[in-house]
Amino acid sequence: MEKVNLNQKFKLFSELWTPKIVGELNGQYVKLAKAQGEFVWHKHDHEDEFFLVIKGPFTVKLRERNILLDEGEFCIVPKGIEHKPVAEEEAHILVFEPKSTKHTGDVKSDLTVEKLEWI
Amino acid sequence: MEKVNLNQKFKLFSELWTPKIVGELNGQYVKLAKAQGEFVWHKHDHEDEFFLVIKGPFTVKLRERNILLDEGEFCIVPKGIEHKPVAEEEAHILVFEPKSTKHTGDVKSDLTVEKLEWI
Repeated sequence: MEKVNLNQKFKLFSELWTPKIVGELNGQYVKLAKAQGEFVWHKHDHEDEFFLVIKGPFTVKLRERNILLDEGEFCIVPKGIEHKPVAEEEAHILVFEPKSTKHTGDVKSDLTVEKLEWI
Repeated sequence: MEKVNLNQKFKLFSELWTPKIVGELNGQYVKLAKAQGEFVWHKHDHEDEFFLVIKGPFTVKLRERNILLDEGEFCIVPKGIEHKPVAEEEAHILVFEPKSTKHTGDVKSDLTVEKLEWI
């Protein structure tokens, strides 16, 4: 049971759209991700997804509107809702979601990472 | 599905050791709490607990050592582990834990809040 410093962890990787696992609790993972550019439209049929922005801005596009998040802001995308994360410049995100969640959800994409790494 | 700004939410309450619910996902709550002084020793027999410090410092005392957390740092206290949060000055914390978790765990204290409020 060690403490985790978010900024130190973000220095350990540079890949975009490649969540790294930094914690596990109650069947959920805490993940950190760097985002820049456009991710893919996807949804998670059975899992809600929490995005907390550590370095923004970061936008969660929905089919009917956009949620623009800056540092210190979060949103929860409920299961079944299509969404597409985008960031013009490099953004840093903390994600909580069940261990079973795939980051591209029901979509198979070049961006899909099958096995996430612990850092 | 609205975004939540942590600092704005922290302005909405002043009670210490009284977690406020700000989000719900996958059977878990996201809670914000203000801490100053000493909480009670307690444990959660069935739930791991995540503490992310938004404004520190904030210490999680364990029986054999202390985990000192500053802004941007988190720790996860595994189920069954006795812990006692303390903060010399007012600290702001984001907590992520199952909806069933009572903040004083297996201990009934003057600090126990039976029904948490959504803000």
